Amino acid sequence: MPRSMRHDISISTVRRLSAYYRALRELRGEGIAVASSQLLAERSGVTPAQLRKDLSCFGHFGTRGRGYDLDSLTHELRSILGLDRRWRVGLIGAGNVGSALFSYAPFREQGFDVVAIYDVDPAKIGQVWDGVRIAAIDELRPGAGRVEPLDIAVLAVPAAAAQEVSDLVVAAGVRAILNFAPRKISVPDTVALRTVDMAIELEALSFALRFLAGR
Amino acid sequence: MPRSMRHDISISTVRRLSAYYRALRELRGEGIAVASSQLLAERSGVTPAQLRKDLSCFGHFGTRGRGYDLDSLTHELRSILGLDRRWRVGLIGAGNVGSALFSYAPFREQGFDVVAIYDVDPAKIGQVWDGVRIAAIDELRPGAGRVEPLDIAVLAVPAAAAQEVSDLVVAAGVRAILNFAPRKISVPDTVALRTVDMAIELEALSFALRFLAGR
Repeated sequence: MPRSMRHDISISTVRRLSAYYRALRELRGEGIAVASSQLLAERSGVTPAQLRKDLSCFGHFGTRGRGYDLDSLTHELRSILGLDRRWRVGLIGAGNVGSALFSYAPFREQGFDVVAIYDVDPAKIGQVWDGVRIAAIDELRPGAGRVEPLDIAVLAVPAAAAQEVSDLVVAAGVRAILNFAPRKISVPDTVALRTVDMAIELEALSFALRFLAGR
Repeated sequence: MPRSMRHDISISTVRRLSAYYRALRELRGEGIAVASSQLLAERSGVTPAQLRKDLSCFGHFGTRGRGYDLDSLTHELRSILGLDRRWRVGLIGAGNVGSALFSYAPFREQGFDVVAIYDVDPAKIGQVWDGVRIAAIDELRPGAGRVEPLDIAVLAVPAAAAQEVSDLVVAAGVRAILNFAPRKISVPDTVALRTVDMAIELEALSFALRFLAGR
């Protein structure tokens, strides 16, 4: 795929690519080998026009009147989404959220391997989870010695610690952060950041419930 | 607040309201009582114009040249977001994700009480978590007898079960669903749905890493 085409890909586009990828795997699981843009769009929750527009950013897929070959489109999307290789993930925080994330099977299935775990709690440091020893977070500090090279850091730490921990992993060379702490954190432009704020989602629901109740 | 004003509130606006609410509490925690739209916007990660525009949808806040009274704005935002009351939450799925969500303190602090837990695993049914007995999911079926009245259902079930479980809770009268299953689910228009798909966030990061690496 031409690199110049990828410059302006928005986060919404990437989310839709993820949705297409899921829909493709679902259809393939049903034994379907070729699908119309109509069917693929329907399964992905978008219009066929949106689907065609998104995919056209990355090259030519599908044949007019015949549809998309699902195996070849799956292959392309895996490559575009960076799912055709394995990523080294460091989990920062071994509390309830960290532990659930560590056990979350879809991560590993999609190529994300937790290769390091860090915490501040002396009771947790030294524990071994499925072959991964929990290290002291201080080991991430510059000059602390052996730091696992990490592609992605997953922050499962309290809100109050989030910015400091983020600064630490950025200083350790991590270029992508998935933040579960309920707080906005700042990172340099060269670092990709995604936040999962479960409380915000619940607030959207309580807002909606109040609104529904008011009608 | 006039009801008619709330009709077109987008999910992005609600997310920003949540961000303002967090920023307000943060500033108040620092002992600040009155803040300019500049400061509040900066803490929320938006422009002052965006902040003023969002808040103007809900009434008149702040005084030109003086700024926002943080306590009164916090009070208003709590009411708008539905955080000035408690919501009855049913947790469906008592696995790793469900267990982490159950222990996630910010939920309770914000007014969301897990009052019922359902699972299909005979080993889990009957367990009591912090005073809440895990019930068989069949108890949600129509006519199954006593169903806890729930405002919000949190789905922490495998992807393959998500749609069926969603249909069950909708039939049981639930009007808001927070879905953690990595799958799109369909609900009637009268039901509010939010999805937290952790795998999609990781895919956005692997996409970004691939893109960064390609530069």
